[in-house]
Amino acid sequence: MDHTRGLKTPKEIIQKMMEKDAYSNWLGLEVLSIEKGSCTITCEIKEIMQNGFSIAHGGIAYSIADTTLAFAANSYGYQSFSIETSISHLRKVQVKDTLKATTNEIHRGKKTGVYQINITNQDDELVAVFKGTVYISKIPW
Amino acid sequence: MDHTRGLKTPKEIIQKMMEKDAYSNWLGLEVLSIEKGSCTITCEIKEIMQNGFSIAHGGIAYSIADTTLAFAANSYGYQSFSIETSISHLRKVQVKDTLKATTNEIHRGKKTGVYQINITNQDDELVAVFKGTVYISKIPW
Amino acid sequence: MDHTRGLKTPKEIIQKMMEKDAYSNWLGLEVLSIEKGSCTITCEIKEIMQNGFSIAHGGIAYSIADTTLAFAANSYGYQSFSIETSISHLRKVQVKDTLKATTNEIHRGKKTGVYQINITNQDDELVAVFKGTVYISKIPW
Amino acid sequence: MDHTRGLKTPKEIIQKMMEKDAYSNWLGLEVLSIEKGSCTITCEIKEIMQNGFSIAHGGIAYSIADTTLAFAANSYGYQSFSIETSISHLRKVQVKDTLKATTNEIHRGKKTGVYQINITNQDDELVAVFKGTVYISKIPW
Repeated sequence: MDHTRGLKTPKEIIQKMMEKDAYSNWLGLEVLSIEKGSCTITCEIKEIMQNGFSIAHGGIAYSIADTTLAFAANSYGYQSFSIETSISHLRKVQVKDTLKATTNEIHRGKKTGVYQINITNQDDELVAVFKGTVYISKIPW
Repeated sequence: MDHTRGLKTPKEIIQKMMEKDAYSNWLGLEVLSIEKGSCTITCEIKEIMQNGFSIAHGGIAYSIADTTLAFAANSYGYQSFSIETSISHLRKVQVKDTLKATTNEIHRGKKTGVYQINITNQDDELVAVFKGTVYISKIPW
Repeated sequence: MDHTRGLKTPKEIIQKMMEKDAYSNWLGLEVLSIEKGSCTITCEIKEIMQNGFSIAHGGIAYSIADTTLAFAANSYGYQSFSIETSISHLRKVQVKDTLKATTNEIHRGKKTGVYQINITNQDDELVAVFKGTVYISKIPW
Repeated sequence: MDHTRGLKTPKEIIQKMMEKDAYSNWLGLEVLSIEKGSCTITCEIKEIMQNGFSIAHGGIAYSIADTTLAFAANSYGYQSFSIETSISHLRKVQVKDTLKATTNEIHRGKKTGVYQINITNQDDELVAVFKGTVYISKIPW
């Protein structure tokens, strides 16, 4: 029996998610690639994303990573929800920087998955590392 | 010798930070209270903050917590920077919910501090728990 | 229908777990109290637990917390497994210190639970904070 | 000016740390390689390391990773201390398994460093991923 039969493709799922995702659209996220368990997203930092130190707010890198996690984890066809996430901010992010988030699927079990997401800037410097654990439901997209 | 002499007060620092913090202003964050090592912030969830599941994007709760962390940690008068943060999303957040972030200063050493931040909704239900570790610099505000 | 009917009590479960738990016995863990979702454990630090800095190895506080997490999470009668855990080491632990781990059940859902565990020493100083997320199975003890 | 002049070599430092590290010796840790910012350690799982589920206690994988972190971070010549660590347990570890911990230095700043440590078994399966943040002091070994 083919468990993937009738399931939407990664592109169909992410298109459906992105259409409704007002916040990711506000951030200006652009999906460069999407496959099962893998996603690459870019974002250009704008003035409205600055914090009290005149650099990008930590919530921006987190938000980019969290969307990337959601897309990678949901791409298999079943709805998945973030349980626990952590992020280390390694380098300052400035206005006009272009960030790129790439995924590494560390583990994909039946019930849970673990993804690492690296965020780099236009000079290929690592600005943040994110780790996310998701719960994989049986609800198809 | 009084090391706090000449340092700005918590209110002066947070006013200065908030003025420049374009993103926290976009989120509509409102500071209810600020003291040394302690901060309470509220935020009303808007449609623009939704993700692909039509609930608040995980980045919103993270961002509220991250600003609250920054304000609590910087309130002593010295610039402090987030090193490592984690958040567990426990309950769905809907449009029109009003979130409240409150701090618990777990540890304040010479070089580092650890803060836990609870985020509750208007029904006093816990929607997320956040833990943040900061590096405390010797740069005064 | 009573879902707890026929399930073992917290004390029965922890007795069964502790009997087989060779490592927790080696650590000398003593369970002070156990109830549904709550557990308190103490441990006296021995020379064999030291690291290269002549203080307790970070793995000792983690191990005490991890056993405490397991006992609190399994006490409801269903087998639960740790998914993600983090610990902040806040204060040095010395040989002959007596540590006490206490639980705070932050969240108990159908599939997952989140527990915070504080570890204090004999002077009631916080030496470490631990957060653990568990997956709750349907397998009864 | 050469800041590394007079500093001990990685091998000298780790030999000094390992000699005093009673707990890592009890675990039977064997250092396969040590260089600046990088360390590989193996450990064979023994019966005394079992928990209440008759598999290796989560504290064992954590302890192996924590020693590996300490050795990699201290190898540059300055004493470094763990601030925050997290571990995801991905696969059961059985008695007689041989675990191998390898480091990935994600970030090495002036004050802090971030290391990822993968733990694999004898079949090259990933059993746990660990992330550790350290504070780098100015105290030479």
